[in-house]
Amino acid sequence: MSSQSSTQAPGPTPEHFFRSINAYQLTRALKGALDLDVFTAIAEGNTTAKALAESRQASERGMRILCDCLAVAGFLTKAGGKYELTPDSAMFLDRRLPSYVGGSVEFLLSPTMAQAFDDVAAAVRKGGTVIDDEGTMSHDNPVWVRFARAMQPLAFGMAKMLTELIKLDPGKKTRALDIAASHGMFGLAFARRYPNLEVVAVDWANVLEVGRENAEKFGVADRWRALPGSAFDVSFGATSDANSHEGYDLVLIPNFFHHFDPPTNEELMRKIHAALNEGGRAITVEFVPDEGRAAPPQAVTFALTMLVTTARGDAYTFAEYEKMFADAGFSRSELIQTPMGIERVIVSYR
Amino acid sequence: MSSQSSTQAPGPTPEHFFRSINAYQLTRALKGALDLDVFTAIAEGNTTAKALAESRQASERGMRILCDCLAVAGFLTKAGGKYELTPDSAMFLDRRLPSYVGGSVEFLLSPTMAQAFDDVAAAVRKGGTVIDDEGTMSHDNPVWVRFARAMQPLAFGMAKMLTELIKLDPGKKTRALDIAASHGMFGLAFARRYPNLEVVAVDWANVLEVGRENAEKFGVADRWRALPGSAFDVSFGATSDANSHEGYDLVLIPNFFHHFDPPTNEELMRKIHAALNEGGRAITVEFVPDEGRAAPPQAVTFALTMLVTTARGDAYTFAEYEKMFADAGFSRSELIQTPMGIERVIVSYR
Repeated sequence: MSSQSSTQAPGPTPEHFFRSINAYQLTRALKGALDLDVFTAIAEGNTTAKALAESRQASERGMRILCDCLAVAGFLTKAGGKYELTPDSAMFLDRRLPSYVGGSVEFLLSPTMAQAFDDVAAAVRKGGTVIDDEGTMSHDNPVWVRFARAMQPLAFGMAKMLTELIKLDPGKKTRALDIAASHGMFGLAFARRYPNLEVVAVDWANVLEVGRENAEKFGVADRWRALPGSAFDVSFGATSDANSHEGYDLVLIPNFFHHFDPPTNEELMRKIHAALNEGGRAITVEFVPDEGRAAPPQAVTFALTMLVTTARGDAYTFAEYEKMFADAGFSRSELIQTPMGIERVIVSYR
Repeated sequence: MSSQSSTQAPGPTPEHFFRSINAYQLTRALKGALDLDVFTAIAEGNTTAKALAESRQASERGMRILCDCLAVAGFLTKAGGKYELTPDSAMFLDRRLPSYVGGSVEFLLSPTMAQAFDDVAAAVRKGGTVIDDEGTMSHDNPVWVRFARAMQPLAFGMAKMLTELIKLDPGKKTRALDIAASHGMFGLAFARRYPNLEVVAVDWANVLEVGRENAEKFGVADRWRALPGSAFDVSFGATSDANSHEGYDLVLIPNFFHHFDPPTNEELMRKIHAALNEGGRAITVEFVPDEGRAAPPQAVTFALTMLVTTARGDAYTFAEYEKMFADAGFSRSELIQTPMGIERVIVSYR
């Protein structure tokens, strides 16, 4: 009656398509788990669906289904009806820890992002965001305050890594400019490491309030100053400091160039070049796809986020950055092979 | 200055979290590609971003970014700036072919589904859908007409596979009942294969119109009849046929039990048992997770779709089905080990 022999076609299957079209369900399941703070509950010792349900005033059936999904997706382990955190989840999804990155959903899944990705076809037709003329790049867009608060724990680790890659002379009085400083983490990591370093942070005024809080938290507020405005418009020397005529030894440009087109980036880099001291360096932290734009996956697909959220942004290759920076006057640029998380670092020499 | 040595921590990373929280972007990219009918354009010979942009009145930059994402996601190959379809994409995403499954997004990404997944936490708290009391299970919900039209190409292949697994006596006059027939594909595949088989299809009246169209297309409309209404309420013998007192040799229940709780399923299975002839079989097609609910991934995570779209639905294990069906009077049930696509088949003997 029923045949046990295989009837599976060895040919094409639509399974990858269906898995991918349903990929959003993983986003929603994770968001639900963060909303319920399930990971912290497990870390606190609630390891069964029943215990989790009780600790979160939820249904046991709902918890079982959600946790099974989280286990299948690699965020939990499951054995004998008990759920445990993976090492990654224990470090980054337990809300009690400073390394908690769950707050990033406030930015990553913000209404702005949802709106931007709602009609990818329209953005492809137009060649840029259909949100409004400037997308997320409009002046004082509050999405960047959200970004600053949400991405700060992640940036903290990356900024620390960056100070391992880029060294300054600890004995010398030095100055750094932190462009689109956001939470301020990149400049602050250097300020904390180098007691003779003064940091000037550029960003929208509303965003810099987050940076100021962090400067105080880090105990370096006396060597950190806010320079509010657009990096394209403000004078980089215009600080209240008596030494404002001095140039910078380091200019940090983390996650900024991807929002703009090459001429805009070249123009900014020329301005940065003029603000650098002899021997100074510009440090770009970016998603940098390989020249063929076939890898790494996150760098390639990041271009889509730029397409749907900005007018002309992109994920540029190193060759593209090298040209922009050379055209802006830099003698040479090098791509640091060590990836920093999923991003890469380009060092450009004045 | 810049260190080339590795500073990557070997320890935990938040990368899997960020990849997963952004998983929805793959859904949106694929949806955008289907909206623009990019796969068909490539099949028609437009293999560069420029040619694709021209064929679809889109920007070259947008096409390049979208196609790079599709390549990274495994839907296209890319070499020398040219994009080609993978075998899977060529078969299932070229709109000109009957095997095209892209229409499924009309159901899979329908507003109902989006609404259901919008607040997973709320569904976990409640233990069922928060859409309304019955979720997608309300009477004559138009989402099922959408489902019928959208899922028909996929069901066609699966139904054909099912006729390889489940055999009837071709020389004998037989009758099949197709429960929640939808597009009708499962019953129709048997009708096409067995010229002496008569099929009775149960579903909402609005949905059965899709099944009727397909019966005509398959040239078996004279042996296919609609029995409109809820499978729980209608009398399975109530056909206009003179032989309506006869029972059924085969009852097909594809993708139905997962919407309900075990007592409801047991009740329906008891009614099916009563409608079967001696030697008759009930054929369940379902997402069936392994007993530990740790695999296969699609079957485990399908439970979440049931949690957020229905009041009490689930993805049941074979042991759970076996118990429901035994309690309903079936002598035994067997799980066919051969997977049918991502679903499994259970044969239950009267």
